Amino acid sequence: MADTEDPRVTRSREAVLAAARELLREEGPAAVTHQRVAARAEVGRATVYRHWSRPEQLLTDAMAGVRMPFFLDPTTPVRPWLKAQLRVLADELALPDVLAVTTSLLHGAVWNPEITERRDRLAAMIGGRLRASLEMAVRTGELRAAVDPGDAAALLIGPLLYRGALEPGPVPDALLDRLLDAAGTWADR
Amino acid sequence: MADTEDPRVTRSREAVLAAARELLREEGPAAVTHQRVAARAEVGRATVYRHWSRPEQLLTDAMAGVRMPFFLDPTTPVRPWLKAQLRVLADELALPDVLAVTTSLLHGAVWNPEITERRDRLAAMIGGRLRASLEMAVRTGELRAAVDPGDAAALLIGPLLYRGALEPGPVPDALLDRLLDAAGTWADR
Repeated sequence: MADTEDPRVTRSREAVLAAARELLREEGPAAVTHQRVAARAEVGRATVYRHWSRPEQLLTDAMAGVRMPFFLDPTTPVRPWLKAQLRVLADELALPDVLAVTTSLLHGAVWNPEITERRDRLAAMIGGRLRASLEMAVRTGELRAAVDPGDAAALLIGPLLYRGALEPGPVPDALLDRLLDAAGTWADR
Repeated sequence: MADTEDPRVTRSREAVLAAARELLREEGPAAVTHQRVAARAEVGRATVYRHWSRPEQLLTDAMAGVRMPFFLDPTTPVRPWLKAQLRVLADELALPDVLAVTTSLLHGAVWNPEITERRDRLAAMIGGRLRASLEMAVRTGELRAAVDPGDAAALLIGPLLYRGALEPGPVPDALLDRLLDAAGTWADR
């Protein structure tokens, strides 16, 4: 329990968590390894292991309340930017730790209201960012007749989740293009 | 442990599991409730609860080794058949018990080799059936230039999984049509 814990232990735990959050925010889930977190927090790897024996657990705790880089700050033309974002996400979901955190979140959300809230926040964040990028594409004339904004995340990210969680293996460029084509009618194509 | 268990308890457990598998095979995961399984097995509900306190656990055990009805035996024209199948799957994934079993399978597969195998069998089964239905559509001239067969399941089912697991809510018909459109070029459209 925290209230009987040695204050030095509490401090080292917080330093590790802060470092994990920084790495998560700056580089995404793949960067949250014991080694890199220990280096960033300026503690030994044993200290990180003492608090979180598996990287997945550290990543789960770090994810709570951190803004993640996915689909943030779109640039024009939107389509190549979006394709690059989908590629990054597909590659992240291929990493066992990231997949473990993701599936743990999805499973926990079925039973635990606190995790449900965290999942809902994550889904709202990703959905909101995707919508914003598609709106930018519509505004600049790059995209006509886009998918219903409420369906954008399911359509674009669902297949990457399926590949990561059910059919491990590479996500070919052709699939990403097919998803982008399905997201609306693009100009110049 | 099974080898110290009263044989009558073992028999009632097997009767319940057999009933659960029948219901799963005949009607899909939604049918595997304590009440219906007890009625089918001709035991009291308390007997079902004694072995499986949550329907999710019973469903998980019943799923092991059962052929499920999804995407089985396509009929022509394939597109409306496929759309109806996707609708059923979307509705199943909206049920908390089904979602719990699914996410439990996906999460467990990250760590537990036995569950990984079960997940891989499920993914191969679904992927194989979907491919067979698209091949039938191509053979009958209904579909031209279909998606890479290896990507069909991710493309068609991924968005339903995303909606079920991350963005609970109805899957509109328009989204199903968009997915089917993305699966290839259909004749007569």
